[in-house]
Amino acid sequence: MSKIERDILLTEVALRDGSHAIAHQYTVEQVTRAAKALGEAGVPYIEVSHGDGLGGSTLQYGLSHTDEMKLIEAAVSASGDSKIAVLVLPGIGTVAEMKQAASLGVKMARVGTHVTEADVSAQHIQKAKELGLETVGFLMMSHMAPVEKLVEQAKRMESYGADAVYMFDSAGALLPDQVRERVRALRENVGVDIGFHGHNNLSLAMANTLAAIEEGAKRIDGSIRCLGAGAGNTQTEVLIAVLDHLGIRTGIDLYRIMDVAEEVIAPLLQVPQEITRDNLVLGYAGVYSSFLLHAKRASQRFGVDSRDILIELGRRNVVGGQEDMIVDVAAELAGLRQG
Amino acid sequence: MSKIERDILLTEVALRDGSHAIAHQYTVEQVTRAAKALGEAGVPYIEVSHGDGLGGSTLQYGLSHTDEMKLIEAAVSASGDSKIAVLVLPGIGTVAEMKQAASLGVKMARVGTHVTEADVSAQHIQKAKELGLETVGFLMMSHMAPVEKLVEQAKRMESYGADAVYMFDSAGALLPDQVRERVRALRENVGVDIGFHGHNNLSLAMANTLAAIEEGAKRIDGSIRCLGAGAGNTQTEVLIAVLDHLGIRTGIDLYRIMDVAEEVIAPLLQVPQEITRDNLVLGYAGVYSSFLLHAKRASQRFGVDSRDILIELGRRNVVGGQEDMIVDVAAELAGLRQG
Repeated sequence: MSKIERDILLTEVALRDGSHAIAHQYTVEQVTRAAKALGEAGVPYIEVSHGDGLGGSTLQYGLSHTDEMKLIEAAVSASGDSKIAVLVLPGIGTVAEMKQAASLGVKMARVGTHVTEADVSAQHIQKAKELGLETVGFLMMSHMAPVEKLVEQAKRMESYGADAVYMFDSAGALLPDQVRERVRALRENVGVDIGFHGHNNLSLAMANTLAAIEEGAKRIDGSIRCLGAGAGNTQTEVLIAVLDHLGIRTGIDLYRIMDVAEEVIAPLLQVPQEITRDNLVLGYAGVYSSFLLHAKRASQRFGVDSRDILIELGRRNVVGGQEDMIVDVAAELAGLRQG
Repeated sequence: MSKIERDILLTEVALRDGSHAIAHQYTVEQVTRAAKALGEAGVPYIEVSHGDGLGGSTLQYGLSHTDEMKLIEAAVSASGDSKIAVLVLPGIGTVAEMKQAASLGVKMARVGTHVTEADVSAQHIQKAKELGLETVGFLMMSHMAPVEKLVEQAKRMESYGADAVYMFDSAGALLPDQVRERVRALRENVGVDIGFHGHNNLSLAMANTLAAIEEGAKRIDGSIRCLGAGAGNTQTEVLIAVLDHLGIRTGIDLYRIMDVAEEVIAPLLQVPQEITRDNLVLGYAGVYSSFLLHAKRASQRFGVDSRDILIELGRRNVVGGQEDMIVDVAAELAGLRQG
């Protein structure tokens, strides 16, 4: 793999982010087949974990069909020259689990926090480095912080030892010019590689990815056949085709990656990866997908459109864990209407 | 409707371009319900015709379930303040059919030709104007002509009397910078409104639409719930959400258009509007969708990858009607391989 010229380092996330889209039901056979095919197509990194990362298989986040360590082991042995990455969200995934993953042959840890909470990644990033893992820091829901805050948080992750820092557009809420401004600021202020991870709720995952690359992002996440949470991510095989037209090298074989999408991944889809009303509303409001069900319940209780609730939650920058705010907002909106 | 401020004039094409996606099986009931709901959402123009325009219901292009004049009549009576448009492709649709459509209450004719064949639109555009119809000229497969040629052809349509000229990215082959360059050149050289119609084969319909708007395109086509040929068009309700964030006014109610997508259009979908391998290859190669089946047949006969055939056809700018070239190209590629 060392001889392959790559302008952009792609990480395939369908075996992690896509786990959300299939209710975490991946089997060893599916992961083996997918990792082998992705390896043969020349994908440099393949992320494998529960949708919420190591340790995510819980009643709260959804139980996995198969122990993720078994899936990781299968991916490592099948993926050839491709390296296996795991997602670790401090508070969910532990250092012990990261160690176990490393012992199974994982080569990269991706440590993610909410965009304003980089602090909590310090220990995980440092331990990952000690384990000899390539280590990436993620700032999730990055649309929720102003540019200066995003930069400051990225610098913290860099200071903990991250080899690269990604901005995640977790809600698929950013517009291309916003991505452009953010990536530019990160590039100007952070020494390590900048990465971008997009979602397609506003049909802008590809546009945002191209904007990020134009501004100097060197690492990009894609989900093959768009298999990711919500409306899916930047569709890997489509991105490879577009980058090919632009003369940007990924080291990934276009025909092979198209075939993996159609022959290996498409049969796994349980629901079409389309932009439904719910996904659109989440992207438009810029809120956590976990708010949706709560907002619909509050909508029925207070007779307020769930969209009004979600948009107001987005305006107030309500974050995960503040679900009790949803009822407050709904009640307030109902009061405003009556008032 | 005269009081509504609109920065962009949207034409909804799901009842025409989307006809391809459901094998031209629209019923009077479906069109009535959709046109009514689109009208209530404030969509200014709704295109209703066979996927290949007036007169398209043939063995060659696919037989319609219902006589399109019946569908047009239903749309006119249901659509409230929205105006009904029809597509006319000279060579398929006749002036007589355009007259009949006008007598049923259609207010706009959209006359389309291949990007290098604007000449053949002269009569239809002139007759449409005589009938008192707002008249739009389309240049289809616009990626196949250099910018100067595109401009020259647009000027011809303008000279025939078109009130606006659209560039169609019929194959979903253009990249945002290419759209930008083309729309800019059109704006600089053509006096009437410029329009853009995108397809999503490279996951760039939204990006290309925003690029067109930034360069001054005033008319945009969208397909609600992405119901259009191939990978679908710019998804209308998503576009309305994005433009709302950008402060660009369409006069369309966001919640209502979301609801039409989910409640009226989604149930009509026969196949998910996803980017499949076939659609991706067509966009990447920049060729007519009608070439696909021929290329697959030639692939089997000559033992050449159908993608190699399609890409070579794209390189040679082969156009519809030259399907015999497909076998020639396949044979040549097979010879090259053996040689």
